[in-house]
Amino acid sequence: MFLNGATVGFDTVNNKAVFIDQTLLPTEYREVATDDFNEIFDAIKFLKVRGAPAIGVFTAISLAVLMNKSTADTYEELFAELKDYCEKLVLCRPTAVNLKWATEEMLKVAEKLNRENFRTYLIRCALDILDDDVAVCRKIGEYGADLLKKCNSVLTHCNAGRLATVKYGTALAPIYVAKENGHNIKVFADETRPLLQGARLTAFELCDADVDTTVICDNMASFVMKNGLVDAVLVGCDRVALNGDTANKIGTSGVAILAKHYGIPFYVCMPFSTFDKNIKTGDEIVIEMRNGDEIGEMWYENRMIPQNAKTLNPAFDVTDNSLITAFITEKGVIAPGEIKNYI
Amino acid sequence: MFLNGATVGFDTVNNKAVFIDQTLLPTEYREVATDDFNEIFDAIKFLKVRGAPAIGVFTAISLAVLMNKSTADTYEELFAELKDYCEKLVLCRPTAVNLKWATEEMLKVAEKLNRENFRTYLIRCALDILDDDVAVCRKIGEYGADLLKKCNSVLTHCNAGRLATVKYGTALAPIYVAKENGHNIKVFADETRPLLQGARLTAFELCDADVDTTVICDNMASFVMKNGLVDAVLVGCDRVALNGDTANKIGTSGVAILAKHYGIPFYVCMPFSTFDKNIKTGDEIVIEMRNGDEIGEMWYENRMIPQNAKTLNPAFDVTDNSLITAFITEKGVIAPGEIKNYI
Repeated sequence: MFLNGATVGFDTVNNKAVFIDQTLLPTEYREVATDDFNEIFDAIKFLKVRGAPAIGVFTAISLAVLMNKSTADTYEELFAELKDYCEKLVLCRPTAVNLKWATEEMLKVAEKLNRENFRTYLIRCALDILDDDVAVCRKIGEYGADLLKKCNSVLTHCNAGRLATVKYGTALAPIYVAKENGHNIKVFADETRPLLQGARLTAFELCDADVDTTVICDNMASFVMKNGLVDAVLVGCDRVALNGDTANKIGTSGVAILAKHYGIPFYVCMPFSTFDKNIKTGDEIVIEMRNGDEIGEMWYENRMIPQNAKTLNPAFDVTDNSLITAFITEKGVIAPGEIKNYI
Repeated sequence: MFLNGATVGFDTVNNKAVFIDQTLLPTEYREVATDDFNEIFDAIKFLKVRGAPAIGVFTAISLAVLMNKSTADTYEELFAELKDYCEKLVLCRPTAVNLKWATEEMLKVAEKLNRENFRTYLIRCALDILDDDVAVCRKIGEYGADLLKKCNSVLTHCNAGRLATVKYGTALAPIYVAKENGHNIKVFADETRPLLQGARLTAFELCDADVDTTVICDNMASFVMKNGLVDAVLVGCDRVALNGDTANKIGTSGVAILAKHYGIPFYVCMPFSTFDKNIKTGDEIVIEMRNGDEIGEMWYENRMIPQNAKTLNPAFDVTDNSLITAFITEKGVIAPGEIKNYI
C-alpha cells in the first residue's frame, strides 16, 4: 500500500493523489489513487477525505496532479485551467477553511511561474504543504509526549488523529510520538455522537498503530474520570479565539467541565493555523447546526426517535478558556492567556 | 386500547395482565394481554416490560391472573402453585429489586388466605400494588409541578417516565401534572446511549402526551445548558444511599456536574422504595458492567467499532450528594442531607 501510515499522499511516479476512503472505515480500509477531477471533487464533498489539514493537503496535491497531466500549451491556458479547478473545488465544502487556503496558495505560486516551470513548481508547492503539515503535527507530538511523560492513560473526544491530517494528527500526535519513544499511553476514546468519529476513526487509527484503545459512550466520561482511569484529556480544535476560547466538536466543552471537576488536566492540541486572530472571544464563533436525522437515523437499521419529536444537532461547541489547562502547539506548550503573544 | 395511558394494567373482566411491548418502541405501539406463564416470563426477561416499579406491578398482576385461572382444589395446592410461579419469575431478572419484592408481597398475603378467598384476595393485593404505584408517582408529580412553577424547560436523562412505572413516572411526573394544571414545560431528552431509552422511550411517551420534546445526543447537554435552554434537570434513580449519593443510568453524574457548573438546579425524583437504608454512601453501590457489543453493534446496520478496540460499558454511575439540589419524593421535596430523617 502506498500511504504506509499516512492519510493522504502524492504518488509522483504515477502522478496520482492518494487517499484513504474514510467513509468505509472501520469496516474496510481502502486506498484510492486518482488523477480524475470528478473523483477528487467527490472525495472532498462526500467526506472520503476529512479533517481540515488533510483536506488542505489533499487539495494541493490534487491540483498539482491535475495540472501535471494538463494538455494546455501556453502559460495563460495553464493558469486558466488551474483557476477553473480551484473555483470548482472550493464549492464542494464552502466552509472548509483549509480547502480555500490551499487553492489560494497554489494560485499564488502559479502567478509567478511560466510555461516551462508551471508543472514542476506546483508539484514542489504541494509537496511543501504536505511536508509542513507533517512537521507541525510532529512538533505538537514532541511537545505533548514530553508533557505526558508521567501519564498512563488519556481520554480524547472526536478524531483529531492522523486521519484528520497527513500523519500523527494533532490530539493523537503526543500518543504516537510517545510510542516511538517507548512510552505506551492508553487511550479512552469517546464514541462522539452522532457521527461516531471516535468509535469509527480514532479507534481505527489507534488500533492500527497498536495503541491500547477503549471506546466508551460520550456519557461514560464522568465514570472513567471518577474512577481514576485517565490522567489527562487531549482534544483537537476547529477554531481558537484571541482569548483562548476554543470551538471543537460538540461535547468537548462538557468533557472540559468534567475534567475540571475531577482535577484532570485538559489540553487542546492546536496547530497555529487554527488560531483566528480576528475573533476576540468564543461568543463570536457561529455554531453550525446540522440535520437532526443524523441523531435519529444515521447508521441505524430503523429510526430511533419518534417522528413527532424535535431534535437539536449542533456540530460544535465552545470551551471557555478557563477550562483549558494549556495548548499544545508546534511552538510549545502555551497557557490560554499567552497564545495571542505567539503570533 | 385497554391501557389508556398506563404502561401495565389488570383486565379483571377478561382476567389478563396487559402491557406495552417496549422493545417495539418507538417503531410500533403494541398492547399485549396475556394469562400465559411463558409469555409473562418472556415479557420480563426480554425487557418488554422494564423499569423497576413497572416490573413489580406487572409481576403482582401476573401472579393474580395466573392463580385466578388455576384449577387447583385445595389451599395447599394453590399456595404451592403460587410459590412455584414466584420462584420461576424471580429468575428472569435476578437483580431487579421490585420483582423480588412483588413476589414476596403476594406470598405474604397468600399465607393468610384460605381456599375460598385465595383468588379474590390476590387480585385485591395486585390492584393495591398498582394503585400505590400510581399514587406515589402522582404525589411526586404534584410536589415537582409546584417546584417547577416558573420553569419553561427541563432536561432529563434516560427514561424515568410512565413507561418505567404504571402511570406518570417519577422524573416525568412533574411534567405531566404541570400539563394537567395548564403549565406546558418543554423537555430536552438526552438520547442516553447505548440503550437509547431517552430517544426511544422518553421521547415516545412525551410526544404521545403532547409535550414539546427535543432529543439531543448525550454530549450536547453542555451546549443546551450554556445557551440557557433549560431551567432545571429532572432525573430518576435506581438506588439512593443514606447520605443521598444516587445511582442512576450511566451519564447522570456527568449531567449533574454540568448543571452545577452552569448553576442549574438538579433534582432527583425518588419514590422512597428506591431508598436503601442499608447503604451509607455511593461507594458501596456495585456498578453493573454490560457487554460492549451494546456500544459497538446494537441498533446499527454494521459494527461501528473496530474489532480490536476494547470497550467499557458501565450501566450506571453514582452522583455525589453534593451535586443534587433536592430529592422530589412522595413525602415532599427533601434536601440530600435530610432524607435519612424521613424513614
